[in-house]
Amino acid sequence: MTNLRVVLVSPLQSGNVGSVCRAMANMGVSDLWIVNPRIPDNAWEDGEKLACHAGDVLAARHTVATLAEAVADCTAVVGTSAREGLYRQHHRTPREAAPEILRIARKGRVALVMGREDNGLENDEIAQCTHLLRIPSSPEYASINLAQATMICLYELYCASSDFELTDEKSPPAEASARKRLFELWRTAMLAIGFMKEDKADHMMQGFQRIFSRGVKTADDANIMMGVARQAERAARRRPTPPGEQITDNG
Amino acid sequence: MTNLRVVLVSPLQSGNVGSVCRAMANMGVSDLWIVNPRIPDNAWEDGEKLACHAGDVLAARHTVATLAEAVADCTAVVGTSAREGLYRQHHRTPREAAPEILRIARKGRVALVMGREDNGLENDEIAQCTHLLRIPSSPEYASINLAQATMICLYELYCASSDFELTDEKSPPAEASARKRLFELWRTAMLAIGFMKEDKADHMMQGFQRIFSRGVKTADDANIMMGVARQAERAARRRPTPPGEQITDNG
Repeated sequence: MTNLRVVLVSPLQSGNVGSVCRAMANMGVSDLWIVNPRIPDNAWEDGEKLACHAGDVLAARHTVATLAEAVADCTAVVGTSAREGLYRQHHRTPREAAPEILRIARKGRVALVMGREDNGLENDEIAQCTHLLRIPSSPEYASINLAQATMICLYELYCASSDFELTDEKSPPAEASARKRLFELWRTAMLAIGFMKEDKADHMMQGFQRIFSRGVKTADDANIMMGVARQAERAARRRPTPPGEQITDNG
Repeated sequence: MTNLRVVLVSPLQSGNVGSVCRAMANMGVSDLWIVNPRIPDNAWEDGEKLACHAGDVLAARHTVATLAEAVADCTAVVGTSAREGLYRQHHRTPREAAPEILRIARKGRVALVMGREDNGLENDEIAQCTHLLRIPSSPEYASINLAQATMICLYELYCASSDFELTDEKSPPAEASARKRLFELWRTAMLAIGFMKEDKADHMMQGFQRIFSRGVKTADDANIMMGVARQAERAARRRPTPPGEQITDNG
């Protein structure tokens, strides 16, 4: 992702530029180039506000006059367009193109080129692109906000770079042996509280096991529900909790 | 996607609500509920501006006092959280969870619940969720703007619903027989213009065929490049273009 550059062609609203900066920081990208901005020097307040904690990305932006300057040192130039037309038929989705773009980015700089809020990219700008992306969207309203479209492209590249892994739960997954003990304790408890009788117990336990197998995922989950079963059985038999034993103990 | 509801919990900025409306329209979703908004009645100008052509989604929003009211008729309640913590460890990525969420949405209403800009979802709100999503993002700046996060979740659901297909190019793909004729014409032309000699031609055509196979995708592409080869050969032999023949003809 460090070889990735975002190029905004002639943006109109500094707020969008700021939102792009935040999206870039969210996805680990920091190289921003702006081609011929239509934003007056005194109209950057929104941009700074919406960049939020990505103010350094905004501050380090390069401003140039032409797209050719912004992409001169890039091996791949990836354009985006929601419009269809004669020179825009070879588009792919960001998800489809992401692995190839990342492969190229391993050896050289890659520009993601985003068009104007109002008019997208012109044909002569599309002609400078080696790849063209189109984001899946409803045919009834295909025009996606500039910063949102940038986010989707960067998000797809970030996911494809597969640096991200969800953190595991702290408690390990419950093992089958723990689930087996859990079901035995609940069987005993449900007989004790009079929820079912011995002759129907096997049948009823089947539905019950299905519910608990889906719900009880971790060793902690299993321990908690075993504690509940033991306590229910004790309450039904009017036996007091043994001194020193926790309700959610590990048995 | 029609059974999908977006629920914003206590949003602070109407601009974010407007951007959410546009993202919803982009992804074919229209049912918006807002829980206890912190937006004064006279501060909706940004919201209306940023909703852009999705003003009808904004206008049709439901406003309620509690999350419980907003999700009462929903079978699945899908929360989102960037934070980690005791009750947030069972999150999945939007991409991983999307197929299951869509399966549920085929039979009942599903709420996508987005937290506050400043504080996300509280633990008692997370407890009302049947699913919890976490969006892949850079560990250095994981906090994604409310409307951007909503867009990513809706985009993943839209992609998984697979209603979307890129339009095909108007020209059909080039067939192998057309590529074969193309290579023959270029071989003749490159000999005629003196770019290569007969004894090296087979070797040089190999690299040339690789370049053209990658570049020439459609029947139109093949026709154009065949026209160029014919014209180059004619120019080299100083033969005039036959009257009535187009340079990019199909001949």
